[in-house]
Amino acid sequence: MSKIEKVVLAYSGGLDTSVIVRWLQDTYGCEVVTFTADIGQGEEVEPARAKAEALGVKEIYIDDLREEYVRDFVFPMFRANAIYEGEYLLGTSIARPLIAKRLIEIANETGADAISHGATGKGNDQVRFELGAYALKPGIQVIAPWREWDLNSREKLMQYCEQHKIPVDFSSTKKKSPYSMDANLLHISYEGGILEDPWAEAEEDMWRWSVSPEAAPEEPTYITIGFEKGDPVSIDGERLSPATLLEKLNKLGGANGIGRLDIVENRYVGMKSRGCYETPGGTILMKAHRAIESITLDREVAHMKDSLMPRYADLVYNGYWWSPERRMLQAAIDESQEVVNGEVRLKLYKGSVSAVGRRSVDSLFDERIATFEDDAGAYNQKDAEGFIKLNALRLRIAAGKGRKLI
Amino acid sequence: MSKIEKVVLAYSGGLDTSVIVRWLQDTYGCEVVTFTADIGQGEEVEPARAKAEALGVKEIYIDDLREEYVRDFVFPMFRANAIYEGEYLLGTSIARPLIAKRLIEIANETGADAISHGATGKGNDQVRFELGAYALKPGIQVIAPWREWDLNSREKLMQYCEQHKIPVDFSSTKKKSPYSMDANLLHISYEGGILEDPWAEAEEDMWRWSVSPEAAPEEPTYITIGFEKGDPVSIDGERLSPATLLEKLNKLGGANGIGRLDIVENRYVGMKSRGCYETPGGTILMKAHRAIESITLDREVAHMKDSLMPRYADLVYNGYWWSPERRMLQAAIDESQEVVNGEVRLKLYKGSVSAVGRRSVDSLFDERIATFEDDAGAYNQKDAEGFIKLNALRLRIAAGKGRKLI
Amino acid sequence: MSKIEKVVLAYSGGLDTSVIVRWLQDTYGCEVVTFTADIGQGEEVEPARAKAEALGVKEIYIDDLREEYVRDFVFPMFRANAIYEGEYLLGTSIARPLIAKRLIEIANETGADAISHGATGKGNDQVRFELGAYALKPGIQVIAPWREWDLNSREKLMQYCEQHKIPVDFSSTKKKSPYSMDANLLHISYEGGILEDPWAEAEEDMWRWSVSPEAAPEEPTYITIGFEKGDPVSIDGERLSPATLLEKLNKLGGANGIGRLDIVENRYVGMKSRGCYETPGGTILMKAHRAIESITLDREVAHMKDSLMPRYADLVYNGYWWSPERRMLQAAIDESQEVVNGEVRLKLYKGSVSAVGRRSVDSLFDERIATFEDDAGAYNQKDAEGFIKLNALRLRIAAGKGRKLI
Amino acid sequence: MSKIEKVVLAYSGGLDTSVIVRWLQDTYGCEVVTFTADIGQGEEVEPARAKAEALGVKEIYIDDLREEYVRDFVFPMFRANAIYEGEYLLGTSIARPLIAKRLIEIANETGADAISHGATGKGNDQVRFELGAYALKPGIQVIAPWREWDLNSREKLMQYCEQHKIPVDFSSTKKKSPYSMDANLLHISYEGGILEDPWAEAEEDMWRWSVSPEAAPEEPTYITIGFEKGDPVSIDGERLSPATLLEKLNKLGGANGIGRLDIVENRYVGMKSRGCYETPGGTILMKAHRAIESITLDREVAHMKDSLMPRYADLVYNGYWWSPERRMLQAAIDESQEVVNGEVRLKLYKGSVSAVGRRSVDSLFDERIATFEDDAGAYNQKDAEGFIKLNALRLRIAAGKGRKLI
Repeated sequence: MSKIEKVVLAYSGGLDTSVIVRWLQDTYGCEVVTFTADIGQGEEVEPARAKAEALGVKEIYIDDLREEYVRDFVFPMFRANAIYEGEYLLGTSIARPLIAKRLIEIANETGADAISHGATGKGNDQVRFELGAYALKPGIQVIAPWREWDLNSREKLMQYCEQHKIPVDFSSTKKKSPYSMDANLLHISYEGGILEDPWAEAEEDMWRWSVSPEAAPEEPTYITIGFEKGDPVSIDGERLSPATLLEKLNKLGGANGIGRLDIVENRYVGMKSRGCYETPGGTILMKAHRAIESITLDREVAHMKDSLMPRYADLVYNGYWWSPERRMLQAAIDESQEVVNGEVRLKLYKGSVSAVGRRSVDSLFDERIATFEDDAGAYNQKDAEGFIKLNALRLRIAAGKGRKLI
Repeated sequence: MSKIEKVVLAYSGGLDTSVIVRWLQDTYGCEVVTFTADIGQGEEVEPARAKAEALGVKEIYIDDLREEYVRDFVFPMFRANAIYEGEYLLGTSIARPLIAKRLIEIANETGADAISHGATGKGNDQVRFELGAYALKPGIQVIAPWREWDLNSREKLMQYCEQHKIPVDFSSTKKKSPYSMDANLLHISYEGGILEDPWAEAEEDMWRWSVSPEAAPEEPTYITIGFEKGDPVSIDGERLSPATLLEKLNKLGGANGIGRLDIVENRYVGMKSRGCYETPGGTILMKAHRAIESITLDREVAHMKDSLMPRYADLVYNGYWWSPERRMLQAAIDESQEVVNGEVRLKLYKGSVSAVGRRSVDSLFDERIATFEDDAGAYNQKDAEGFIKLNALRLRIAAGKGRKLI
Repeated sequence: MSKIEKVVLAYSGGLDTSVIVRWLQDTYGCEVVTFTADIGQGEEVEPARAKAEALGVKEIYIDDLREEYVRDFVFPMFRANAIYEGEYLLGTSIARPLIAKRLIEIANETGADAISHGATGKGNDQVRFELGAYALKPGIQVIAPWREWDLNSREKLMQYCEQHKIPVDFSSTKKKSPYSMDANLLHISYEGGILEDPWAEAEEDMWRWSVSPEAAPEEPTYITIGFEKGDPVSIDGERLSPATLLEKLNKLGGANGIGRLDIVENRYVGMKSRGCYETPGGTILMKAHRAIESITLDREVAHMKDSLMPRYADLVYNGYWWSPERRMLQAAIDESQEVVNGEVRLKLYKGSVSAVGRRSVDSLFDERIATFEDDAGAYNQKDAEGFIKLNALRLRIAAGKGRKLI
Repeated sequence: MSKIEKVVLAYSGGLDTSVIVRWLQDTYGCEVVTFTADIGQGEEVEPARAKAEALGVKEIYIDDLREEYVRDFVFPMFRANAIYEGEYLLGTSIARPLIAKRLIEIANETGADAISHGATGKGNDQVRFELGAYALKPGIQVIAPWREWDLNSREKLMQYCEQHKIPVDFSSTKKKSPYSMDANLLHISYEGGILEDPWAEAEEDMWRWSVSPEAAPEEPTYITIGFEKGDPVSIDGERLSPATLLEKLNKLGGANGIGRLDIVENRYVGMKSRGCYETPGGTILMKAHRAIESITLDREVAHMKDSLMPRYADLVYNGYWWSPERRMLQAAIDESQEVVNGEVRLKLYKGSVSAVGRRSVDSLFDERIATFEDDAGAYNQKDAEGFIKLNALRLRIAAGKGRKLI
């Protein structure tokens, strides 16, 4: 480990990363640059400035990355219909490569030789931050305090604060949730506490972004989402920027009890963990995107996307956003989305979202051929005989030679 | 086309297949054997006997195949978590190979040289019936009246009945639904009518198996499903046969507004079509099966299953149940299910189903390692550094040699 | 079938397609436009003009498509390392989409309403021609004489010529090979004759493009192929056009006995068939392309290409070049090839080709890290422990809970 | 790291592992159990006994594992046609899981709490040994001296021997090859030395198992291999045990210059490395296995195998033989091999191996249908029209709605 002069820290302003600032200064004798981003976590980022200043930080970066986040990370991922392990919409995973990128940009600007973050040594986030950092700046050093220090409990952290006179806002930290939470414009996640028993149901008051289906309105809400090249661009005819659109979908979904998920997932580092997620807008968007694809995508393109999707989701989950293989898959996916234009009408009601209508100038739905009524010769039913006969040929030959299938 | 002496017809007892009986007798001068199966479509099958007799049929087969259907077709498919095009639970597709198998068995028993069915020349069902038949008895002949005759409207069929004095129960047929429907123990489907416009919302009174989420009870229903080797075996501790279990899930799901689906899908014969489906029990089962897998399956096994699934679903959808490639995939899937044992607790409420608990003696969830609390050394956080460093090595080398990812 | 006014025929000038000209004129009462292409089959195309004129054809197209063929079809396919069923380099398959495209262009130019070809009803080529034609011009009609007429033997064809006074060069046709052959710049194929017995060895005098390994020079030949963006651009430093380069590789390979293949393959129409192929230049090119990729491609990109390859090869073999799914795959493949630049040195000797050297400014081979000697700290061996430990974690947990692997 | 009492070492009897014995005794103060296996590396294993005894080892295991190796590892892998990165037949990779299994068995028998091996911290073998060990005995400890000590050169090792009076046979070690080599019944590998420059051609005298193609006989050798359920069982009609059969193929291949390979491959630990391999018997076997599959496997089964193969090869290469996902794939592969019976005739000549004949009672090759001659109605060419029309339907609809493919 070579000497470190300056480190850029992903800084939230909370207890943990405030301790990290001081610990880095003390342990490495280095200068700390803080970086705080608004990616829609729902907390003010500006207060982080005063806290960093109080810790003696001289270079303080506070960025509003919401539009970039949704436009360049969330939307490209939704083009792939990415779902991890059949259920998880990757709300935490997709925010990390943006943080990694910004950390490296700031390292380049400030001449820092290391980055640091507050992710633990058991989780996926350390992997996502660090793979991204190494991929973008191979010589960078990484300091992961949770893997190094022995401050492995809240009590020890508080003690450290007192010893080192770190000005933490104890009032806010006292009423701490029993869950470990993380939020950004795409979702909020909960882990730990009673969730560590996979048989225990999450308590109703854990959920923060959505009302319970029981508490949602008795009347359904209908909305129409417009798509261009696979990305949503409008709600009910109103054109919205990426972040604004997702924010609005979050409100609509949350109000209708949509997007809660309770799963046990497999982490990249090798263990299973229980997680609960609220992804109101993302859940609506996934349904809508599949619906607009259903009338605009060729069948084989759609199936190929489905067969590539699990791999794409693994890449995002495991932290390989900044990799040539993700770019390669993205090239194929983006190629398919040129024609994914049109509108989807959705019904939101007490926890569920249904596509009830879809239309597009690029629709491949052919009423003349699909009809149960007389199609005036658009489709020749006799073609089906040859189609079936030749598709069956290999099976007929095999059966004729005695192969058994039962 | 060689001379046909005897044909086995998949006979529902309804208008269409009654016309087919007579049309086969007249057109081919052959004997007709009828086969009527109870696969849970919810209509009496016994009345088909008198109707067939009235048409002069001498060999009449009426079978209750519900248990075989669920045990040997539905459950093996659910082991694969099969979903077609991201949404469709394959409720129609999976019933066809059983019918095909039984048609061939009866052809063997009765010495028939052909089979016949009432599926149209535009749909998937003709393919599924015929591929199955050819795969199981390569020399069989297939007569698909809808591809041959010109009785291509309800009016012409009725006229044919009158001309040929076919005793149809007109009272029942008059109040005919505007939709083309098909049902079995796994689902009921709707096509045609206003659904041919993919922008038009299905009318509430179309749905038959489920109440609307709006009309579902205000209180959630909780159930626990027990699994053995990947198959459900009990509900709330009560052991049930496959068909009985699925029937009960259908009632529970239907009462809670669960399992409605409205999609545009791609048919194997090349066109897009709009379909609405109610799969109440299947929707619950899919959620439960994924949940029990989430704690019992190894990560890589689960991911491999996910990557194979789209291919498996295509095979079922396209009619290749009776094929060596489906058997090959099934061998891999079944190998994975030995350990899929345990219980899943589910919450059913107004259209949505959530897994809220899962437990198993075969659980791989390790509380000691997964915990956010002190794990007493079960997991060495320092291992993560080497893990990340070597996973990043190829990316670091590439970046060091000037490769750009942005 | 609507009335046909004018048809564009893929015309070789040989017996079969000469009969087709007259048969089309007689059977459909339509005008015939002939199209003859030089795609490197090694026969003069100009003589086709006089033959067509003698048959009363007024619009005659004769094109040299060699450069387009190699540049836009062969090379893009080699970027994918496409091999069908583990062995076949797709030499026939890849020529068909170019012919289909040109037939449709000529149909558009001449106002023809149909195309026609001389491929049989049992083979893959009919599928490839017609899928391409339909995909590029959906209203086009297709006449496939071999599926319609009863001239199903050479004798009947000759008789037809005499009856209709078709001026065939009988001298050339008498010494006909017992094999059905097809050639283009990528390969020559042999089917039929004694090859219909898969146990029978092909006779030495069947092979036309290569000497036997036994007859090849006793001294190896060394060559160096230069690549840019995945395509070969030079041999031994001499820049060559695509067709010229492939032609030269064919000569080099043929002289060294390289590129013979004898296989049983699965046709898209459902049967197995025996084929022998000579692909001298393609065999060298495949080896060289893999070798240049081996030092320039990222590992995961290379593996992703390998996992996509079988699907890509199926698409080409089955005739789906002109499809959105092939374009989608191509987008991913082409994305990967930007960095595939450099040189490969090859040894050609008596039937085998080996890569013996590869170098590139885009090489990812890192001598410092790969070395068995002291690497001066470029790689930290201790990282491997954490890498292995965490990769093993899921296996250790499973074993700890009693899972057995033996 | 807890206290280690006894360690089982994979012991070759050579310099490196002899040093490791003493180093383990000194560093860990533990008892060392040695395990030496004959897996066909071509060196006597019995001399290891005296060397181990001289080092004070009390529990010495020397096993002949050749039959087990070929029967339970090599052959199952060849059923999958496994090739890594398009070229490498996995000769080193497949031997490791057997060693790992035996190390653990011996640890169980002797009550050892650790295993150790002589693989370096840069290579794949450490991963393969250790993943296998952890998967089979999760509590086992692993000592990898090359990752711990500083004896990182041949000189330091020799010095250590002298200091510790380790009786090494210096005469044999003096004429050491410049290459790092590894051999077993499937192959011999070469790394290091001038091979570290990927542009440098391997010297002729490096190769040990095969004559150069130039030096091979002028006359081809023909052999016939018999297969049962996907495994080779005989050569030229003579039934042979697995190891004996592979040994004989090695001799035949080596004498004909077959099976040399020179590649740059991607290691699991993240770097590229140059390797040369001789796999004479394996190269013949791969060709033969594909040939017998070509007439006995269904098309879709064969294609599914091809699409799964790269993943299977990755698993073997990366060291996941002992994993549930490899077993899952193996279940699918083995299911396909029931019908892979019959004979393949091969021509071996100066470096190349060709299949020239294949026959089987389970052949799906149907001469009646495949023939270019009159097939007496076995195949109806008119079926092809419907087959093509419906396969083209989605493309025709898309083109009709204005989609462009060019």
